[in-house]
Amino acid sequence: MIIVMEPNASEENIQNMDETLRDLGYQTILNKGDVLTVIAAIGDKSMIAPKHLSAMPGVKEIVPIQDPYKRASRITHPEDTVIEFENGVKLGGNSDLCVMAGPCSVEEDTEILLTVARGVKAAGANFLRGGAFKPRTSPYDFQGLGEEGLKRLAKAREETGLLVVTEVLDSQDVELVAEYADMLQIGARNMQNYKLLNAVGRQKKPVLLKRGLSATIKEFLLAAEYIMVQGNPNVALCERGIRSFDTSFTRNVLDLAAVPVIQKRCHLPVVIDPSHGTGQRYLVSPMSKAAAVCGANGLMIEVHPDPDKAWSDGQQTLTIPAFESLMKDLTALYKLRVSSDQL
Amino acid sequence: MIIVMEPNASEENIQNMDETLRDLGYQTILNKGDVLTVIAAIGDKSMIAPKHLSAMPGVKEIVPIQDPYKRASRITHPEDTVIEFENGVKLGGNSDLCVMAGPCSVEEDTEILLTVARGVKAAGANFLRGGAFKPRTSPYDFQGLGEEGLKRLAKAREETGLLVVTEVLDSQDVELVAEYADMLQIGARNMQNYKLLNAVGRQKKPVLLKRGLSATIKEFLLAAEYIMVQGNPNVALCERGIRSFDTSFTRNVLDLAAVPVIQKRCHLPVVIDPSHGTGQRYLVSPMSKAAAVCGANGLMIEVHPDPDKAWSDGQQTLTIPAFESLMKDLTALYKLRVSSDQL
Amino acid sequence: MIIVMEPNASEENIQNMDETLRDLGYQTILNKGDVLTVIAAIGDKSMIAPKHLSAMPGVKEIVPIQDPYKRASRITHPEDTVIEFENGVKLGGNSDLCVMAGPCSVEEDTEILLTVARGVKAAGANFLRGGAFKPRTSPYDFQGLGEEGLKRLAKAREETGLLVVTEVLDSQDVELVAEYADMLQIGARNMQNYKLLNAVGRQKKPVLLKRGLSATIKEFLLAAEYIMVQGNPNVALCERGIRSFDTSFTRNVLDLAAVPVIQKRCHLPVVIDPSHGTGQRYLVSPMSKAAAVCGANGLMIEVHPDPDKAWSDGQQTLTIPAFESLMKDLTALYKLRVSSDQL
Amino acid sequence: MIIVMEPNASEENIQNMDETLRDLGYQTILNKGDVLTVIAAIGDKSMIAPKHLSAMPGVKEIVPIQDPYKRASRITHPEDTVIEFENGVKLGGNSDLCVMAGPCSVEEDTEILLTVARGVKAAGANFLRGGAFKPRTSPYDFQGLGEEGLKRLAKAREETGLLVVTEVLDSQDVELVAEYADMLQIGARNMQNYKLLNAVGRQKKPVLLKRGLSATIKEFLLAAEYIMVQGNPNVALCERGIRSFDTSFTRNVLDLAAVPVIQKRCHLPVVIDPSHGTGQRYLVSPMSKAAAVCGANGLMIEVHPDPDKAWSDGQQTLTIPAFESLMKDLTALYKLRVSSDQL
Repeated sequence: MIIVMEPNASEENIQNMDETLRDLGYQTILNKGDVLTVIAAIGDKSMIAPKHLSAMPGVKEIVPIQDPYKRASRITHPEDTVIEFENGVKLGGNSDLCVMAGPCSVEEDTEILLTVARGVKAAGANFLRGGAFKPRTSPYDFQGLGEEGLKRLAKAREETGLLVVTEVLDSQDVELVAEYADMLQIGARNMQNYKLLNAVGRQKKPVLLKRGLSATIKEFLLAAEYIMVQGNPNVALCERGIRSFDTSFTRNVLDLAAVPVIQKRCHLPVVIDPSHGTGQRYLVSPMSKAAAVCGANGLMIEVHPDPDKAWSDGQQTLTIPAFESLMKDLTALYKLRVSSDQL
Repeated sequence: MIIVMEPNASEENIQNMDETLRDLGYQTILNKGDVLTVIAAIGDKSMIAPKHLSAMPGVKEIVPIQDPYKRASRITHPEDTVIEFENGVKLGGNSDLCVMAGPCSVEEDTEILLTVARGVKAAGANFLRGGAFKPRTSPYDFQGLGEEGLKRLAKAREETGLLVVTEVLDSQDVELVAEYADMLQIGARNMQNYKLLNAVGRQKKPVLLKRGLSATIKEFLLAAEYIMVQGNPNVALCERGIRSFDTSFTRNVLDLAAVPVIQKRCHLPVVIDPSHGTGQRYLVSPMSKAAAVCGANGLMIEVHPDPDKAWSDGQQTLTIPAFESLMKDLTALYKLRVSSDQL
Repeated sequence: MIIVMEPNASEENIQNMDETLRDLGYQTILNKGDVLTVIAAIGDKSMIAPKHLSAMPGVKEIVPIQDPYKRASRITHPEDTVIEFENGVKLGGNSDLCVMAGPCSVEEDTEILLTVARGVKAAGANFLRGGAFKPRTSPYDFQGLGEEGLKRLAKAREETGLLVVTEVLDSQDVELVAEYADMLQIGARNMQNYKLLNAVGRQKKPVLLKRGLSATIKEFLLAAEYIMVQGNPNVALCERGIRSFDTSFTRNVLDLAAVPVIQKRCHLPVVIDPSHGTGQRYLVSPMSKAAAVCGANGLMIEVHPDPDKAWSDGQQTLTIPAFESLMKDLTALYKLRVSSDQL
Repeated sequence: MIIVMEPNASEENIQNMDETLRDLGYQTILNKGDVLTVIAAIGDKSMIAPKHLSAMPGVKEIVPIQDPYKRASRITHPEDTVIEFENGVKLGGNSDLCVMAGPCSVEEDTEILLTVARGVKAAGANFLRGGAFKPRTSPYDFQGLGEEGLKRLAKAREETGLLVVTEVLDSQDVELVAEYADMLQIGARNMQNYKLLNAVGRQKKPVLLKRGLSATIKEFLLAAEYIMVQGNPNVALCERGIRSFDTSFTRNVLDLAAVPVIQKRCHLPVVIDPSHGTGQRYLVSPMSKAAAVCGANGLMIEVHPDPDKAWSDGQQTLTIPAFESLMKDLTALYKLRVSSDQL
């Protein structure tokens, strides 16, 4: 149940309502916007609002909601969430398109990571991405450098000023990864690893949550809800391709409509990963542009100085010059998007 | 097997090769481009080229191809197919974005169709779409006005100068529909109705072939091949959403990456239908822009003066003012796309 | 809306109700069972029954139904439909498991078809299957022998006494195929070819309707409804595998639960095609047995004397000895199923 | 690469080959069967066997394998794995059908679990199932009783003699759950939680690994491989329904063909969960029988004394009498299966 308070409701009215709800056994979330204050009352499986509530002073409207994702829902939180990072970079709302770029995994050769970091920074990226802990379908594939990889990412950050986003695979590693990264990534395979969601929800670094291969939008938002319930409001949602019946030419089907679909229902930033979303280098650029135009708040793109020698995912990875060229196109498109009335 | 002839191969060389291939039992397709002449030899299941062919005069290269869609393949036909209509409108290649708009079905009320036709023409559309024969999941739903609907479409063309694209459902109706329409549409449910594909392949009007709900790209191109084999080279491919596991918020998943995926392998124009592709009005505009940016040659959009009263598909249909606004954005984006080096 | 009449309602009561409904603008379907008479009133989009109806003499209950498939629904027709063929073979209800077997397509070599026919007849099959008109993904693949193929099927029937089931691809061919076949098959690709459904609905031979590759159960039943609306009540529903994300080891996913799912909602017989449903010879036998046990009324199985030389679908085709062995197992299982209380 | 040793190869021959392979940098797995000894050499991405190996004494054949799941593959381990439990119950191979039954989750009311346990034991079940740690899509749903739930399961085992299988959700809980359970279950959402797979691989209790909602068979076997690589050979694979496009009447599509598909490639036991696989009570019985007939080694079935009051999954749960009735049918079918030549 959502209680929408009148624009002129007093602080006392709001307090009063909040206490009443808690006395009735609801858990409450207050969201004070510029114009309206909205109180979400959680625990209302019956969907029936006690009648006297609507008669209380300062109440504009009581909306029984069925969105099971209360904190992630735009009904309880109408304004866009904008995640601010230490260096001033923002992700969400009307902020600039936030670009995360880097190799699939941090590799043995130290120079590669630094070369990519310098290259993508010069081209205008905001984040360096790169896997230190790698989830791999086969136990015989390269599983990542672990903490050593995290250290290298941190070093690249030091040199370039880029922020670092990297994946955490297990609840036991959350503290370690949070020490090095600016943003923790939850991979698609772990979207419903609830212990891990709880763990990243209990720490303070923002979280990039990737959509599971066959997760519905509702399940995706409920996974974000797991993180938010633990106290971390800074979650970004990353669409990275869904499983389909046709894998001849693409690894996955990139569900671009998920951008406006999610944004209609949820206030969190949406990021598109066209590298995993298509699995093909020649598709990264057109899909990145399409994402920018249809409202994505960020992009996550795999870049490597020599993709064909990359330890993983080479076939979907851009070269540094291709990334530079894409960034120019994106800048032009993004300007147009911002100037458009409609978007 | 593809025989690529030298740029300076003589007409005699080419004739010679063609005859030799036919003598060997192959069916041949000649494609004379500005620079190269390419001969596709069909019937080569063995994938083994007789050795003496490569030694013949004027031969540059012999490529064994495995693309089962020989005529639709970009290997045999490297240049983009551009379909030209009587009034000069073009679809494909570097031509302007070709926009097809109109109501889902032609309805009883004559004024509605004319109102839409005038509105979309004024906004810059090239085609009027509208169903006279409607494929409906339930036998109890409105099945279209039939020939009466075709007559109304023709009348709207007369008044506005728009071209007409409309669906044909059965091989027996092809002649009738071709009499009234400028382009024949094959619907998603009929993508593998081979008798119908053969029938539209034997007549001369261009064909808009919609992708089946769960058709792979390869099956889609093979369906186009059916039409082309019968002698009709003017086929446009329309992606209109594929079936997925999540139907809570969208009717289908719009597979936008299909645009560059198809264009890499096939020379035919690609059209996107964001109305059926998403099933939701608020998604039509962002997905149309995304399509324009990632390389689509055309768009097919449902427009109705009063969508909530439309006889079918109202929830995914734009109003005329919303369509006008979208057209302005598309024009700006399309200019940018053309000026970009990359696209 | 469904009107359930009292067991002791008079013929006059029933006539009366029927006329009243027609006067109200409903189309009606009378179903007189052994115990109850049920009248389906079609055209009731409002789902609101005029109040005075329930007060009419002989009315037991008025059930507003939302099943859009009125004729196919078990609500309007509680008893199982049993299709009876000229030679006494029955399909549906508690009849014996009805087995249809034969080669994928009727081939050039006349002996092959006769060999299969004799073999499967001896093993206990009821129907000879075989394609004379073949729907093929590629226009370059063998498209069937056409009428010549039909003649051969008829000849094999003459010799063996087997019934013949074969596919019809186009509304124009319905009459021709109906002349030779005992049962007309509508293939998966044509499940929503409504002109074809109408055409087979207007003739008298029973129809075997295959489920589309990505058709929902609801769409499947509505396709059957198209046939039934035209006056043909003898439709059997054939599940033959649905499209899924995993095609490494099977061609499709056989949705065996569709058997009880359909039988709960629909009175028509259900047939399983494990050959197309799995695409693998070694899976045909276990899946046939599973189908027999979970309630299927019939099976359609591809059999060929030398599957590896078959012109199509060899990899999913049983040899004659393997088919014989399977038939023995099926008989044992079917006896058990019939003796079980639960099934 | 697989080295198949001659039936009469000496112990010394085998040792010798093993050492040579290790010297070459391969990791080896020895599998000594009754007739043949097979050595799997892992680390052979090149797929090229050093030539001198085939010339070594006692070598019958060298097979380059491409199955990425080396330990799970039937090529390296031709005999069925049979998991033996302390009380003599066996799962796999030609052992009796192993039935796991119980409530979805262990609930507050202590009596419910005991009632189910006594009921299913009397009906012939081998295992008590029940969730103490529950993975739930929404953070607001009941998450299980935790250790308290484990204690109750252990108490029910004590009283009834049933074995206990229960889910573990996080690598940190493995030790705790292993203390109480006879078999650890990895849920569908965690099939690719590699840290968890590693953790259950490092302990000794057998593992029931559920297939992910959209996991391919190959990914499923690779997940088992993760567990086996850590030293635990006792893994059973549980198919529990895959995600599909049609969720109107069933929660998932039960992929029964997965039983013979997996058994052809992999020696591990296969268990079917018709409760989650269909999500509907009326489908549990027919699908259980179908599973038994097509080769499943075990079944996992949700049972509750009063399903409509169950805290989770009530709509797919059998009553105790329905379970008893099913067990009788299964016994009859299983006898038939064992007596059949073919299965």
